[in-house]
Amino acid sequence: MTITLLHPGEMGAAVGTCLVSRGNRVVWASENRSEASRKRAIDARLEDLKTLACALAVSDAVLSICVPSGAFDVAREVAAKRFRGVYIDANAISPAHSREIGQMVEAVGASFVDGGIIGLPPTPKRTTRLYLAGPKAADIAALFDGSQTEGIAMDRAIGAASALKVCYAAWSKGETALLGIIRSLAKFEGVDEALLKEWNDSQPGVAQKSEQIAARAFKAWRWAGEMEEIAAAFDAANLPSGFLANAEIYGRLAGFKDCPQRPSIDEVSRSLRVPATS
Amino acid sequence: MTITLLHPGEMGAAVGTCLVSRGNRVVWASENRSEASRKRAIDARLEDLKTLACALAVSDAVLSICVPSGAFDVAREVAAKRFRGVYIDANAISPAHSREIGQMVEAVGASFVDGGIIGLPPTPKRTTRLYLAGPKAADIAALFDGSQTEGIAMDRAIGAASALKVCYAAWSKGETALLGIIRSLAKFEGVDEALLKEWNDSQPGVAQKSEQIAARAFKAWRWAGEMEEIAAAFDAANLPSGFLANAEIYGRLAGFKDCPQRPSIDEVSRSLRVPATS
Repeated sequence: MTITLLHPGEMGAAVGTCLVSRGNRVVWASENRSEASRKRAIDARLEDLKTLACALAVSDAVLSICVPSGAFDVAREVAAKRFRGVYIDANAISPAHSREIGQMVEAVGASFVDGGIIGLPPTPKRTTRLYLAGPKAADIAALFDGSQTEGIAMDRAIGAASALKVCYAAWSKGETALLGIIRSLAKFEGVDEALLKEWNDSQPGVAQKSEQIAARAFKAWRWAGEMEEIAAAFDAANLPSGFLANAEIYGRLAGFKDCPQRPSIDEVSRSLRVPATS
Repeated sequence: MTITLLHPGEMGAAVGTCLVSRGNRVVWASENRSEASRKRAIDARLEDLKTLACALAVSDAVLSICVPSGAFDVAREVAAKRFRGVYIDANAISPAHSREIGQMVEAVGASFVDGGIIGLPPTPKRTTRLYLAGPKAADIAALFDGSQTEGIAMDRAIGAASALKVCYAAWSKGETALLGIIRSLAKFEGVDEALLKEWNDSQPGVAQKSEQIAARAFKAWRWAGEMEEIAAAFDAANLPSGFLANAEIYGRLAGFKDCPQRPSIDEVSRSLRVPATS
């Protein structure tokens, strides 16, 4: 099977490698993409067909893996080319947004599969789960059989894979954000040492987990948009959530993108108290 | 030493018992209090002096332990009687609110101690920490020596004990609220089973922790106000937080107060999706 991968970011390239390892042809379009993407695509053994039109012309499926804010644009471009194969959106977006994208691509004759990726990018030593929902979910899951990406077809309607991803990320990234602002407040109020002692006495493991925000700060720039998707998912279910605050929290750490050094918890705590300039 | 306890709720009565066990005289004022308070006061061996005026007239100190929304009113009543002993506010309020209460009672000649209680109410088998800040913190901490309430004098300005309590509760109660809305969303989207499986595979312990909200629902009515105090503390430090959403989350569970049976996670999940009628 031939699959167009849009786009080879860190996660996309790693998942693409898994498809290639199972004998699939994976193509991409380097037009308007960065040098970093090109390098990742070469390492992942993806075939560069230069333009989206050329890639789609030979493809049975499109796999969209990008930042949440790019999911609609990618789908729109593909739908504009009247792609009629299988369109898989594997982005961290709300179930409602996934359904909207599904309607958009189905309107021109494509089949839609809703996807959600859970885990860090797969490596030879680490597997990642790609949850899939919709009538063709099992066919797409099968493409990954035996690779380091585990395709899991859910016996559920379109939106379920995105919902599962939202729930999972709401905890993992919500927890990190919450502990981050707590450490920042504790430092601001001069009680950080007392808090760490109390946590170590009565909540084993929490002190250590509260340092995660420093280790993850370099990814914060792409989490801000995901927090907005999570907020939308809670809103649609009439559930109050603080995820717009989490979007602001990660937005304030966006400056750590591509920094050569991991920031200290002190540096992160200070950054959290300064509104993002957008 | 004679201490007026305002008021013998679940926590107050238990902390009062610790003072009594160390030979202190602990008095309270039953005027306008509930039958439940009276029963708790008797069990805790507190001496009922009927009115606040009578209690204050014999007291060296006042210990305020009530719901966060009551902290100001209690302090105002005591200040109105021109109490000049030591006033200890041990409520779950923001550092700024604690400092305001301190100014109010000091204006009439009292000394102020900022307090924060961490842990469940003390029992013969379980200790609780009472953090204290301010010039008289060590004197008050000493009253509890050898009891099941551990008095901890912080070498910090007034507000530090409240700040520590805010940070601690922000995690313990914020975590419970976050996991609660995630389970509710998962059920709404039909992916609860898949989420529990994924958590059990990749996040050991989280599935079990996500049931905490059902076990704690009967306390939610008094946590809503505490969430507002926590929100105020983050605001004052220029930190974005979702704690007003947490106030709404616990407000939606207020109906479980005094219910004879612990609700199921299904019942809690449904309640979370229905706005509180206030």
